[in-house]
Amino acid sequence: MKSLAGQDVLTAGQFKPSVCEQLFKEARAMRTLVDEHGSLDRLGSRVLINLFYEPSTRTSASFAAAMLRLGGKVFPINEIKTSSVAKGETLEDTIKTLEQYADVIVLRHPEAGSAQRAAAAADIPIINAGDGAGEHPTQALLDLFTIIEEKGGPDGLSITLLGDLKHGRTVHSLARLLSNYDVRLNLVSPKTLGLPKAVRDDLSVSVTEHDSLESALPDTDVLYVTRVQRERFAKKADYDKVKGSYVVSPESLVKAKDDLIVLHPLPRVDEIDARMDADPRAAYFREVRNGLYVRMALLALVLG
Amino acid sequence: MKSLAGQDVLTAGQFKPSVCEQLFKEARAMRTLVDEHGSLDRLGSRVLINLFYEPSTRTSASFAAAMLRLGGKVFPINEIKTSSVAKGETLEDTIKTLEQYADVIVLRHPEAGSAQRAAAAADIPIINAGDGAGEHPTQALLDLFTIIEEKGGPDGLSITLLGDLKHGRTVHSLARLLSNYDVRLNLVSPKTLGLPKAVRDDLSVSVTEHDSLESALPDTDVLYVTRVQRERFAKKADYDKVKGSYVVSPESLVKAKDDLIVLHPLPRVDEIDARMDADPRAAYFREVRNGLYVRMALLALVLG
Amino acid sequence: MKSLAGQDVLTAGQFKPSVCEQLFKEARAMRTLVDEHGSLDRLGSRVLINLFYEPSTRTSASFAAAMLRLGGKVFPINEIKTSSVAKGETLEDTIKTLEQYADVIVLRHPEAGSAQRAAAAADIPIINAGDGAGEHPTQALLDLFTIIEEKGGPDGLSITLLGDLKHGRTVHSLARLLSNYDVRLNLVSPKTLGLPKAVRDDLSVSVTEHDSLESALPDTDVLYVTRVQRERFAKKADYDKVKGSYVVSPESLVKAKDDLIVLHPLPRVDEIDARMDADPRAAYFREVRNGLYVRMALLALVLG
Repeated sequence: MKSLAGQDVLTAGQFKPSVCEQLFKEARAMRTLVDEHGSLDRLGSRVLINLFYEPSTRTSASFAAAMLRLGGKVFPINEIKTSSVAKGETLEDTIKTLEQYADVIVLRHPEAGSAQRAAAAADIPIINAGDGAGEHPTQALLDLFTIIEEKGGPDGLSITLLGDLKHGRTVHSLARLLSNYDVRLNLVSPKTLGLPKAVRDDLSVSVTEHDSLESALPDTDVLYVTRVQRERFAKKADYDKVKGSYVVSPESLVKAKDDLIVLHPLPRVDEIDARMDADPRAAYFREVRNGLYVRMALLALVLG
Repeated sequence: MKSLAGQDVLTAGQFKPSVCEQLFKEARAMRTLVDEHGSLDRLGSRVLINLFYEPSTRTSASFAAAMLRLGGKVFPINEIKTSSVAKGETLEDTIKTLEQYADVIVLRHPEAGSAQRAAAAADIPIINAGDGAGEHPTQALLDLFTIIEEKGGPDGLSITLLGDLKHGRTVHSLARLLSNYDVRLNLVSPKTLGLPKAVRDDLSVSVTEHDSLESALPDTDVLYVTRVQRERFAKKADYDKVKGSYVVSPESLVKAKDDLIVLHPLPRVDEIDARMDADPRAAYFREVRNGLYVRMALLALVLG
Repeated sequence: MKSLAGQDVLTAGQFKPSVCEQLFKEARAMRTLVDEHGSLDRLGSRVLINLFYEPSTRTSASFAAAMLRLGGKVFPINEIKTSSVAKGETLEDTIKTLEQYADVIVLRHPEAGSAQRAAAAADIPIINAGDGAGEHPTQALLDLFTIIEEKGGPDGLSITLLGDLKHGRTVHSLARLLSNYDVRLNLVSPKTLGLPKAVRDDLSVSVTEHDSLESALPDTDVLYVTRVQRERFAKKADYDKVKGSYVVSPESLVKAKDDLIVLHPLPRVDEIDARMDADPRAAYFREVRNGLYVRMALLALVLG
C-alpha cells in the first residue's frame, strides 16, 4: 500500500480502497482523540497555508480546524483576487513563493486542473480543496467515511443520488469513489441534469435511473441530496414543474426505510426541509463533523 | 451564583452583580498573568471561531488576542458576505456547520436578535459581539470593569453619559448594567438624541437630564462620551448648532473634578480632542486594554 | 552596537553593517533550526498583529510564517479599508488601540511616512512592511542577506540593478544599504526610469550607468531585476521599443559569468523568462526563503 506521506491530494481517484482504509482508520483515531482531548500536539512544528482564490468559508474553516486541532499552525489567504500577487503573477509563481513559508498548501481555485498545475510546481504537498469543475476529493472522502460510519458499508448498500447530477464535482467524485465497492447506485434527477456520460462510463457498479425519488426510495439506504438550481433551467416554468420532486421532507420520506440516512454536501437552501434536522436519519451535520476527522487524518498522514 | 461555564453570552442583562464580581475577579487575575507571562497555557486545546458578518477590526482583534493569550486557537471568518455560505444559507445552518469545528463562536451580525437565534441553533456557547441595534454585552462589561478599576466604584459614583444616547447599543447596555448599582446617572444629549424611553424605564437609579456638559460636569466622576453623528440630523444647521457642546477638550473640562475619568467605546473621530490623550484622566485606551482582560476572563469561564 | 530589542524597524538606513551582521548571524541560526525542527518555541507568549491597509499576500504571509515558526501567535488584519476602524479613525488611534492587544505590529500602509507616524504613537515596536513610496526595509535586508549567502559578499562584488530604477522603494532601499559596502553598482534602465538623483546622491560607491544589459553583463556578479511597467510610458510605442532589453532569459545571459545570480523582489510577470527557473543561477525563490529567516531573526531580536 502506497503511503500518503509527502503525497499531493488531487483527485478522488487516488483513493483506492486500501488507501481509504488507512485514512479512515486514522480518522477514527482522530475522533477518539478529539473527543478526549479537544486537540493533539502532533503537527506542532508545521505550517499550513489555506490558499483560497474563491471564498469557501466552510471548506477553509474545516481544514483550518483540522490543522489547529492537530497542534499545527495555519495562515489563511483569502484576499488573493485583490492582492498584488494576482496582478499578472502565475499560479506557479505564487505556489513557488508560498511553499518557502509553508509545509503544505490547501488550494481552492476556480479553474479545473489548477491543483495539478500547482502540484507540478511545488516541492511540498498540495491538497485540492476544489478546482472549478474539476474535483473536490476531500468532500468525496468525508461522504464515503460517513456512509461507512453510519451504515457499516458501503458494500451491499443501495445509494441514491438525488438532484442536479450534471453539475457539481462533489457527486461525480463520490460516484467514482463508490464504484470501487459493491454498491447499487440509483440516480434521480431532472432529465436535463443527469449524470454526465463521462462519469457514468467510469462506473463499474449497478446503476439504475429513476424518474422520481418515490420509485427509488424503497430500495434506498443512503440518500445523497444535491440542490437543483433555478439557474440551470432556461425557463422558470420548467424549473417550477420539477422542483417539488427534489425536496426532502418528513412527508417525502414516508415510504423510506427506517434506517435510511440523508446526506448533503451543504450549504442547503430549501432542498431539505428544516424540519428534517430533528430526524435522527438526517446525517448531514454529522457528515460535517466527519469532515474534521477525515481532514485531520489526511493532514497527519500527508505530513507524517 | 450561576456559573458561566458552557453558557451563551447574549445580553448585558445576564450579568447580575454577583456574576460581574466573579468575572472581574478573573479579569484581574488575567491582568496579573499577562503582565508576568504575556500569555497563559489555559485553553490550549480549544478553538474559537470569530464569525463576523460585518467588519469590526477592533472587536475581532480583541477576542482573538484574548483567546491567543489564553493559549487557545483562533480561526477568523470575515468574508462571510461574499462567501458561498452566505448564498441562501440560513444563519442557523452556518452555525450548525461551524460548531462541528469550534468550541465557541464569537458572532457579529447586523440583525438584532441574531445572537439569540444562533444560540438556539448551537450546542456550543455563542458570544454576542454585537447584533445590530441589539446588544454588545462585552463592551458594557469592559466599560463597567474600567469604572471599577479606575474609580473603585461603581457604588456612590456620578456617571455622565454624553452625546448620542438614542442610537448605539453600547450606551443602552451600559446604562442597564449600571442600574444594578448605587449610581447617579447624568444624561447630556441633543434633544432629539436622548435615551429611549424603553431604556429609561428599565433604569432603577437616579437619572438627571442636562442641557449641557457644563451643568453636569461639577458632579461627574465618570464621563462616558459617544459620538454625535451629522447623519442623525435632518439639517446641517441643526447639527452645526449643537456639535460644539459635545466635544471633550482640555478647555471643556476646566471645571471638572481632578479625578474624573473620560471613557469612550471608540473609534473616536473628533468628539474627544487628541490633546486629551496625554491627560491622565483620559482612560479610553486603558479601557481598550481592559477589554482584553475581560474577554480573556469570559472565555476562560465559559470554556472552563 | 545598538541592540534591536524593543526597536522600531522603519528604514533600511537603520541597518548599519554591524547591525546587519548581528541580524544575519541570527538569520543563519534560524535557517539551521527550521531545517532541523520546522519551528521553534521561542516567542510562544507573544502576539503579532499584521496590519495591512493594502493587500500584500506575499509580505503578510512571510511575516506570519516567521512569527508562527518562532512559536508566536499571529492575528492578521486585512480588511482595514472597509472596516469601521477606517471610518474617520486616525492611524494613530488604530495603533494605540491595537497595541493593547499585541506585542508587535507589522504595518503595510499606502502613505509614505505612515510607519514613522505609527511608531511615534505606539509604545510597542512597529515594523514597516512598506509605506507607499517610502521604504520597505525588510525586503532590502533579505536582498542583502541573499547576496551575502549566495556570493560571500557583498564586498568586492559588482551588482547590476536592472529595469525601472525610478519607482519602487525596494531598489532604492537596497542601493542605499549596499552603499555601506565596497561594491560596484551598475545601473541599467530606460532613460526615463533611471535612479532618482536623491537616491544617487546618497550613494558613496562606484556607480556606472549602462544603456543595455549586454554592456553591464560581463562585469556582473549579481543581477537584480525589477519590472518595467507599460503604465510608466506615455506611448505604447516607447514601451515596445525598450521592453525586450529588460527581459532576462537563457539567451540574454549567454555572456554572463557562470556564477552570476539573478534576484527579483517578486512578483514577476514576464521580465524573467520562466525557463530561467531551472537555472541554478536563478536565486529568486531562494531569496523568498531567505525572507523567512531574516524576518524570523528580526522578530526574535526586536522581541528578545
